[in-house]
Amino acid sequence: MTVCEPGTVWLVGAGPGDPELLTRKAEALIRSADMVFHDALVGPGILSLVPASADLVSVGKRAGRHSKDQCTIDRMIVDAALAGQRVVRLKGGDPSIFGRSTEELDACRAAGVPVHVCPGITAASAAAASLGTSLTLRGKARKLTFVTAHARAGEMLDLDWRTLADPQATLAIYMGKKAAPDLAAALVAAGLSAETPIALVENASLPGERVLRTRLGLLPLTARSALGDGPALILVGEAMAARPAPLPLRTSYTAMATSRSADP
Amino acid sequence: MTVCEPGTVWLVGAGPGDPELLTRKAEALIRSADMVFHDALVGPGILSLVPASADLVSVGKRAGRHSKDQCTIDRMIVDAALAGQRVVRLKGGDPSIFGRSTEELDACRAAGVPVHVCPGITAASAAAASLGTSLTLRGKARKLTFVTAHARAGEMLDLDWRTLADPQATLAIYMGKKAAPDLAAALVAAGLSAETPIALVENASLPGERVLRTRLGLLPLTARSALGDGPALILVGEAMAARPAPLPLRTSYTAMATSRSADP
Repeated sequence: MTVCEPGTVWLVGAGPGDPELLTRKAEALIRSADMVFHDALVGPGILSLVPASADLVSVGKRAGRHSKDQCTIDRMIVDAALAGQRVVRLKGGDPSIFGRSTEELDACRAAGVPVHVCPGITAASAAAASLGTSLTLRGKARKLTFVTAHARAGEMLDLDWRTLADPQATLAIYMGKKAAPDLAAALVAAGLSAETPIALVENASLPGERVLRTRLGLLPLTARSALGDGPALILVGEAMAARPAPLPLRTSYTAMATSRSADP
Repeated sequence: MTVCEPGTVWLVGAGPGDPELLTRKAEALIRSADMVFHDALVGPGILSLVPASADLVSVGKRAGRHSKDQCTIDRMIVDAALAGQRVVRLKGGDPSIFGRSTEELDACRAAGVPVHVCPGITAASAAAASLGTSLTLRGKARKLTFVTAHARAGEMLDLDWRTLADPQATLAIYMGKKAAPDLAAALVAAGLSAETPIALVENASLPGERVLRTRLGLLPLTARSALGDGPALILVGEAMAARPAPLPLRTSYTAMATSRSADP
């Protein structure tokens, strides 16, 4: 297994939250670290894998809370590596998808610090797994687009709604809970039907997970009334249509097996 | 850790190939299986985790090779579960992204077989990690789109090039090696500059990995002359611009640390 070497930085994807959804490589890197800098969204189940001898530093950024700015984080991880530490920078999800990795990669490289990336499960993959559905569908959803709806307070979302309102695509919107009314209005104004199936997944993979399926027109109401304080992903498109798949009682299995084997 | 129960099917993402990039959950599911049905692209490093007592069945589909059709695969996994087996269906990458999971999910549900999904690292995340770059960039690449360029022999690629040719997005093209000349021509015709940075990653995360950075105009030549037979991902967009980041010799670290600490 890959381990973190002295004087090296690894940007490690912590995945959606469930410690089981860490990669084996991420686990090995965390277990070999001297210093772990982590986002606020990385929870205790994952942080419990950090060795007792290692320093654990929260550099959490959460909307509306005081947190360390990006330059300070850059400097902290670089200085730790220059001091010879084995540095793991744990980021929620996948570092390469809305993870602001570029600043930290550039800072390490500018300082001559070897830096590597370990990928993680991104929220859209975890949400799809929880929904038991695919994000892509042959013929119906041949394109999958990720955007983030995060905008500073008072700013309008500056996204190209015309290209996003594609009935043949699945749209995964990260951090879209607060902007839900604007998102729904903009997509419908750009031509997407208010009847388009959507799913909302809050706290994907965690014990407090909530999974909701509804229609685009009901997104604002659903986001306001049915979601809590956790991170939420909004999925839009035909692939989110609920499947007619109630599970029959277990006692019917044998009968089904018999009828199946009688098929031509 | 989650284990596979008798009579249950798990669709498990095997990730890009490196056994270290399996999730901990995927490993636990594989180790608890009685039967494992796997794609051709799932390699020996991962298959070595399957217990010796379990049945291992290749249901590989590779372009141009004889393979089991989807209906046969659906029936095999359903029948195994109905017979009380602990069934793992191992799929390359993430089952929810171009993994054709829908057919297998529907078949299980129609037969009353409990079916679950364990997400995997998709090729785009693995390729970005190998490149040491982010797929999204604040201000420059705020949208990330995945498409597959796989088309049947003789068919034209039927994609909406106008919306894909977005200079503010990163485009990840799965299975695009053969279609590279068509892809490049279509994107340039739709308005994307031939100077747009691209990256090609073949066998992402595996020992035979090749990583190439070039420009969109050189995609056809590069795909033809510099890639081998492995699965390749094409990444298009400003986020793929090569970073000016040669690593200095290790002996310069201390000097840099000193000069950094003298900064205001």
